[in-house]
Parts: sequence; structure tokens; C-alpha cells
Amino acid sequence: MTVINLDYLSANPIAPSVQEAMIEVIRGNNGNPSSAHQLGDQALAVLDKARDSVARLVNAADPKEIVFTSGGTESINQAVKGVAWAKADKGKHIVTSNIEHNAVLRTLRRLRMWDYQVTSVPVDALGRVNPADVADAIREDTILVSIMHANNEIGTIQPIKEIGEIVREKKVIFHCDAVVSVGVVPVDVQDLKVDLLSFAANQFYGPSGVGGLYIRRGTGLWPLLDGGVQENNKRAGTENLIGIAGLGAAADLAMERMEARVAHNLKIKKHLVAGLNEKIPDIYINGHPELSVPNLVSVSIRYIEGEGVVLMLDEESIAAATRSACAAGALQASHVLLSIGRDFADAQGTLVLTFGEEIGEADIDRTLEVLAEVVRTLRNMSPLYRKVMKERAAG
Amino acid sequence: MTVINLDYLSANPIAPSVQEAMIEVIRGNNGNPSSAHQLGDQALAVLDKARDSVARLVNAADPKEIVFTSGGTESINQAVKGVAWAKADKGKHIVTSNIEHNAVLRTLRRLRMWDYQVTSVPVDALGRVNPADVADAIREDTILVSIMHANNEIGTIQPIKEIGEIVREKKVIFHCDAVVSVGVVPVDVQDLKVDLLSFAANQFYGPSGVGGLYIRRGTGLWPLLDGGVQENNKRAGTENLIGIAGLGAAADLAMERMEARVAHNLKIKKHLVAGLNEKIPDIYINGHPELSVPNLVSVSIRYIEGEGVVLMLDEESIAAATRSACAAGALQASHVLLSIGRDFADAQGTLVLTFGEEIGEADIDRTLEVLAEVVRTLRNMSPLYRKVMKERAAG
Repeated sequence: MTVINLDYLSANPIAPSVQEAMIEVIRGNNGNPSSAHQLGDQALAVLDKARDSVARLVNAADPKEIVFTSGGTESINQAVKGVAWAKADKGKHIVTSNIEHNAVLRTLRRLRMWDYQVTSVPVDALGRVNPADVADAIREDTILVSIMHANNEIGTIQPIKEIGEIVREKKVIFHCDAVVSVGVVPVDVQDLKVDLLSFAANQFYGPSGVGGLYIRRGTGLWPLLDGGVQENNKRAGTENLIGIAGLGAAADLAMERMEARVAHNLKIKKHLVAGLNEKIPDIYINGHPELSVPNLVSVSIRYIEGEGVVLMLDEESIAAATRSACAAGALQASHVLLSIGRDFADAQGTLVLTFGEEIGEADIDRTLEVLAEVVRTLRNMSPLYRKVMKERAAG
Repeated sequence: MTVINLDYLSANPIAPSVQEAMIEVIRGNNGNPSSAHQLGDQALAVLDKARDSVARLVNAADPKEIVFTSGGTESINQAVKGVAWAKADKGKHIVTSNIEHNAVLRTLRRLRMWDYQVTSVPVDALGRVNPADVADAIREDTILVSIMHANNEIGTIQPIKEIGEIVREKKVIFHCDAVVSVGVVPVDVQDLKVDLLSFAANQFYGPSGVGGLYIRRGTGLWPLLDGGVQENNKRAGTENLIGIAGLGAAADLAMERMEARVAHNLKIKKHLVAGLNEKIPDIYINGHPELSVPNLVSVSIRYIEGEGVVLMLDEESIAAATRSACAAGALQASHVLLSIGRDFADAQGTLVLTFGEEIGEADIDRTLEVLAEVVRTLRNMSPLYRKVMKERAAG
């Protein structure tokens, strides 16, 4: 049975043009871009082409501002630790938000072990940061502000441009985790006024394990990986040429398909949200209704466990997730959902459904049908649900 | 014209079976191994299979001791910084050798910025470390010894097992950079008595940008990449599934072909060394004549510049290198060659020729012919060479 993939966030399928770009590199020469001979020159050409494509995707002023990494997590670690280490003399204070991805959260937890201090600003019930809170949080010794663009669990998009203006005014470095949004909605590093921006190919039909970090010219940070002089001396190590070729092709495709993708995803999102509200009682749709990515729906289904829903959907060949795959092994309730005011039980009953151009309304209809049945089954097994129903009936 | 590739060290060609393994993952599903559904399960199976293959290649006691990385540089940074950070309470002293790769050298330079101290032991004229020197260098506050297995510029293999015994006796953690040797000669982490061992797929017919770190169970180190719970909580970030599949297939192939590869490379090496000695006067063959990797010949050609030779060989479609590609952008003389007693000029006149099963004696003969001509041409342009010749004639 073909799987209906509603877990694009874990990894998009690799687009045909991206597959071909990677296979061409695999089948072709496998030179090292740093070599001073023609096998190296060919590899360098692959690298340069991809860098140009990625620079265009995020509107970097210069392709040299793009550093290729092993994915979003490395980009984020590089940005946050790199600035923290380089600027330790100036100060050790960092500002972030309450709903960042674990790659930011745990990196900041690590930095606390080296006596860095972190101020984390709250979000409202729709998951939005108030730029004024960021302004208030910045101190004399603040060296970095790290706020994500779109949230990976609820999709809400932050007012990055407004925050960027504030942070720049205060002469602090601004990093934005844009893993969820780059390639999904237009992202322009110049318009957003960010100094550092992290992204990953597997969020826009590229392969997993490759991504990039935009580093605005003049932004001082120490490398995470010391060694060779690759990537303009900013990231040592022989490049993942195959993955980078895929990232470049995925960037080209994202620019070409951006408008169509957004339109398609918005249509699917609307259909899915309407269907959920119609077919399943006692749910919350999480995140901002407009200021959010078009390819994600977060739904808290009361009185059940999301993990159980995912397993039962899987039996019907529907792939879904309770939250980011990175956190799948961690058993705590989502800090994102708690931050927007969901209680522990509702957070545990949450599904994150993510999709793309290959998913049609028929897939959503089939999913809604199966999901409604799964929810009925699980709720009928829940003593709490039966108690609530009894009270309502008596009410 | 087909290129004669004598720069395998920069990146091996990707073996056909490795290509197929990667293409299968590209064309197949692209799930995320951390996902709790069948697309994730399929990805996890790819990951587990590769981990088993790699564990067998280095004879790890448990596949869980293998962590996949973005290549040799990340493995080395992870090992060295990871131990340095985790053990800072115990001490801040690290022992290494004078001929390590830049990934170790520059990582240690970085650690010095955090007040770590480094003792670097010398090597003899053949590039060998004396294990007694390592024993003498270890202090009360030593937390790590990092010595490479085979050197990337001269091929010399270190007495790792003897050093391993000393280091273990002193209850210090032992990291070995085995990027040049894993997949090329048998490497057994249990026999070598190492706690950490770094390797990279592109040294044994796998893709660039993927590698691994063997972490003996119980070895305490902090992750370089914080975030998700991947890789047994030791390395956050969605895995480069395509590259890892390639690494696994390359490990399988290396085990299958090990004996044949070593025999072939030794034959080519012998032929090349004999030809160099016969056809080109005033040269040194660097490194240990027996205790070295079979696929590398380092030759210092007096009175000329290696960079010029590489360019002129490239015009004849022969790919060669002066030293590791990672250092190609750096203009200093090789610290490895200076450490074994070459002077600055001879170090600058050095070629590193590396090869594999696809290179035959006819390729070597053609290379020797072209190289002899190139050397004659360059020497005739060298005032120093003409002066030396005049003096010799005057005798």
C-alpha cells in the first residue's frame, strides 16, 4: 500500500531533479574541490554552482556568505556556539525564545556549562514573540539573539524583521533558525536583517544531512570544525559534494516552484483544518491561523495520546508525527505546546501533520476518515474521556 | 583524455557497489530514522545495516560504539574537543605528535585558547613516534592522547598498539586519527587499544563528507553537536542517510577486497618507487619503507616547486598533489616534512602520489615518463639547480 506521507517535516521526499543532480555527481568524477587539478576543478564547479543557487534562495549579497554544513543542527550549533566563543570577551549573555528547536535549546544549555547566561522571551497563545520583549531582554553584555523563523511544531512565523531591526540597532549579532521556512516560504536575509540564518535541504525536497549557514560578511564567529581551509576557512572538512549538489538543485527547484507550492499547501492546509474541525470533536488547532508556514497543521486531540494515534495511522499506511523527529526519543511533553498554554495532557495528544505538493485532497480525505475512527477507538478506551462524556450528558 | 588519478587521498573514486547503494536510497524512500512510522523504519534499517558494516570493518565490540559524522574532520573535532570539554575538571593537558593532520593540529590550537596545554612528541627521520616519548609526556593532568595511525603526507604507520597499552595503563583516553588507514589496511580498535578512532569514507571508495567515530563504550565525551537524540544521544542532527549507506557499502567492499587491495597497492608502490629512483636524480622517498600504508608514495624532488609539478602534470591529465587537499590553500611548508628533517626547499618540492586498484603499472610508467620531463624542464629554469650542477661538474 502506498504510504500517505503527512510527515514531510521529518524529511521531504527527494524531488526527481534533485535525485538526478546527486546521481550525476555520484556517477561522475568524485574529485576534491580543494585539489589543484582537473578532478578538483570539476568538483569545485559543482560546489560553486550549488553555492550560487543557495545564495539566490535566501538572497545573500554574496555567495561567499553561504557555508555548507551537515544540516540544520550543525548550522545552529555553529552559529550559536561560534558567536558565543568568539564574543566571550565582550559578554556571555544570549537572548532566545521559549519555543526554539532542541538544536538551539540544548546548545544554549551546553553554553550555560561555560557560564553563559540565557534570557528566554515568552510567546503568546498563538506562538508569537513580542519584539518589545526582545528589546527589553538585551543587556550591555548581550552578544547574540537567536530566534527561530517558523516553529517546527506549530508553524507560527515570528516577526523576524522587526526583531532584526531592534537587534541591529543594539549592535548585537542576530541568528535565525529558519530550518522550517527556507524553501517553504520566501526567506530574504537582507529583508529580515539577520546576521546568521540556518537551513536544511530536507525541508525543501533535498537530501537529509546537508544544509547551510548564511553568515553575513563581517560577522565574527569561531568555527565549530577546525582543520582544513575549506568553506572560506569557516568550516573545515572535505565537502559532502553529493549532498551539496542535491541542496543546490533543491534550491533551484524551490525558487521555481515557490508560488505554486505555497498555493497548493495553503489549499491542503485549509482542507485539512476544515476537515479536522468538522470530523473530530474536542480538538485545538495550534499556532497562528495566518502567520504560519503553509505546509504544517498542529492539532491537539483531547483525551488521547498522540503516540498511539501515530502507531494506529501507521497501520493504515499514513505517516504522521507527534512532534519533531529529533525529539521522538525524548519523552517529555513539548515545551512549545506548554509555552502556548496547552496543558500536559493536551500536549501529549498532539499531532503535527506536514505535507507538500504530492499530497492531494483525496489523501487528506482518507486521512481524516482513518483519523476520526482512530480517535473514536482510542477515546472509547479512555476512562477520562468517558467520565467527561458522562458529566456533559448530565450537565 | 582519461585522467590518471594519483590523488586518491583527496578522494577515492566511488566504487560501483557504493554508487548503487547510494542510488537505491536516493530513489527509494527518504524517511527519517527517528520517525515512528514505516518510512522511518525503512530509513532506520539502512542506518543499522551501515553501522553493522562499519563496526565489522574496525572490529568494534558493539555497533553502538560507531557514531556517524560528516567526515574525518568532524570525527577528530568531536573526539578531541569532546574529551577536552568533558574532562576539564580532571585536567587540561593533551599529548599529541608533531606530524598530526591539520584537523588535530588546529583543534588543539583552538583548545589552547581555552587554556588547555599541549605536549607534542617528535618523530624520527622515518616519521615514527617513540612510544617511550608518549609515556614521558603523560602527566597527572593529562586527559587525552591523540596520535594518528598513518600519516597523510608520508604514509608512516605509528606503533599505535604499543602507545595504546601505555596510555591505557596510565588511565588516559586515547584517540587515534585513522582517516588514512581505515579501509586501506586492517584496523582493529580492540587490538590497537584505542578509545576513540576517526575515519572517513572517501579514503576507501566511499563518498566524501561522511565518516565515523568509534567511541569505546564508557568513554565520556561531550557532543560537538547538541540538539536531537540521534546517534545514541552522541551526535544530534538528522542523518546523511545517502552518505551513510555509501559508507556502509564501502566498508563491506573494503573487508571483501582488503587482501587484494593491499597486494595490488604494494606492487604499484614498489614499481613507482623503483621508477622514481631510476628516472629522477636528486630525490628523497619520504616515510618508512615498510611500516607505511601501501597506497601512498611521498617524494621530495630537489631544486623545484611541487606546486609547479602538479600544474604541469595536470596539463598532461595526471592528477597529483603536493600534500593533503585540506592544506592546499595554506602556503606554509609542510610541518610533517620539516619534522622528519626535510629542509624548507625540499619540503616545497614534494609530491604525494596516492592510488588504488584502478591504477596499473602502465599508468605509473606514463606518469614517470611525464614527471621526468617536467622535472627536467623545471630544473633547467632553476638558477639554484644550475649552480649546483656547475659545482658538481667542477667536483
